[in-house]
Amino acid sequence: MSRTLKLVLAYDGSAYVGWQRQTSGQSIQGLIEDALSRIDGAPVVVAGAGRTDAGVHALGQVASARVATTLDQPTLKRALNAILPPDVRVVSVEDAADQFHARYSASVKTYEYWIWQGDVLPPFLRASCWQIPRQLDVAAMDVAARLLEGRHDFGAFQSAGGHVKTSVRTIWLARVGVGTVRSARVASPFESAPEDDNGHPVVVRIEADGFLRHMVRAVVGTLVEVGDHRRDADTIAALLDRADRGEAGPTAPPHGLVLVRVRYGPAVAPDAGSR
Amino acid sequence: MSRTLKLVLAYDGSAYVGWQRQTSGQSIQGLIEDALSRIDGAPVVVAGAGRTDAGVHALGQVASARVATTLDQPTLKRALNAILPPDVRVVSVEDAADQFHARYSASVKTYEYWIWQGDVLPPFLRASCWQIPRQLDVAAMDVAARLLEGRHDFGAFQSAGGHVKTSVRTIWLARVGVGTVRSARVASPFESAPEDDNGHPVVVRIEADGFLRHMVRAVVGTLVEVGDHRRDADTIAALLDRADRGEAGPTAPPHGLVLVRVRYGPAVAPDAGSR
Repeated sequence: MSRTLKLVLAYDGSAYVGWQRQTSGQSIQGLIEDALSRIDGAPVVVAGAGRTDAGVHALGQVASARVATTLDQPTLKRALNAILPPDVRVVSVEDAADQFHARYSASVKTYEYWIWQGDVLPPFLRASCWQIPRQLDVAAMDVAARLLEGRHDFGAFQSAGGHVKTSVRTIWLARVGVGTVRSARVASPFESAPEDDNGHPVVVRIEADGFLRHMVRAVVGTLVEVGDHRRDADTIAALLDRADRGEAGPTAPPHGLVLVRVRYGPAVAPDAGSR
Repeated sequence: MSRTLKLVLAYDGSAYVGWQRQTSGQSIQGLIEDALSRIDGAPVVVAGAGRTDAGVHALGQVASARVATTLDQPTLKRALNAILPPDVRVVSVEDAADQFHARYSASVKTYEYWIWQGDVLPPFLRASCWQIPRQLDVAAMDVAARLLEGRHDFGAFQSAGGHVKTSVRTIWLARVGVGTVRSARVASPFESAPEDDNGHPVVVRIEADGFLRHMVRAVVGTLVEVGDHRRDADTIAALLDRADRGEAGPTAPPHGLVLVRVRYGPAVAPDAGSR
């Protein structure tokens, strides 16, 4: 008897070579496979919904695996978290249908990219935010982001080496907004601290049926040009038309990128209507 | 010509032996002194408002120093942040009166202690929260905390080795509350992530004219006993009466403790009236 598990994972990717096993260096996939293999007493192969790059984080990565263990879900969650290091956590464990595959079954993935706009990056955000000391025009960035929504060829935002058949994807939602100032750390129910005056997070959120290699980071590099008034929002249409990587902005660094959530089931715009 | 600087500092204390210079290991004080000495071209001595222990953090530590440099405040702030590592940041630089001393001039210091109540500690909070997987009675903890307010002998909450003349201090405010769930990381202006279901922060906040050695951590260890219903809130009065360290709870670990703010000027209850 074997069963298929669906694991939701959160991790700080700073110390890892990324999701996928590499010939050298520690991967998240390797950690999860090793932990499940220890519990199962036999090799376990794990599939991940998003192949996050080195330094990229997750709040809601999803992994699937066929296992033989008969441990119940809470016990499995506890056992995995006892084996895994504190920068990789199992948020939930569920049993899934036999044919469930974390990547192939996924319908919508949500990434956020966190920018710290300010001259002092709070120490506890240093691993998860790209610091931009300049004032960004967040409203213009949001206008540009919304122009990406829909079914388009996103070749202008794809790094070489992706090995995909088509660069057409559907972005269900692309938005840019300002995070709350207190969010720099545990938000106290009491008054704020002095560091709060030194900036605020700007959050880029993209929900799509799939992502090309470095796509979110190339989009963010392009949106920051808009936020800096070095590019007009209406150049986005031409980027989508010509699908030329050389015309879009640079690739933003990996450490601001977070895989927030993966959805399964029919791919309908999840909550765009409510915003 | 020399001048007195007032620096506000934020740091992740994980990698350090604490504020104070030690015979071995890197201290925050040592880092700031070395950075200012490099700018000044001569040894600079720095005083800190709170002598945070190894692993303890700060959002608003205050340091004072006499320096000779004629650089303006924004330039000094930029230069210091360029020299210091990213886990120690200068939040602000001001000129102060010649007699200003970060510790002796301080009237009120505010500490917070961050507890993560839940079975999964989010990876980005692992360095700054004490994880307690059990359900805590936060309301009972708040009742107990408020009984600490006022001028008392806090000997029951003092570790040996403090070398102080008296263990009488005035706590202006002591409260326990639940932090917001989204605060686990950058708070997105969009919907929340799966990790949010796995717990929430409980924040203990204490404002006092001064603190004894390990005082906040001993208070937190005691309040957690109340939150666990292993101690009644009304035992606080007896603890204050007898000032016996053996009767209070254990000392909570250092990594949940944060020096949030230091106030100067007349020591009147800063904002207790508004709560």
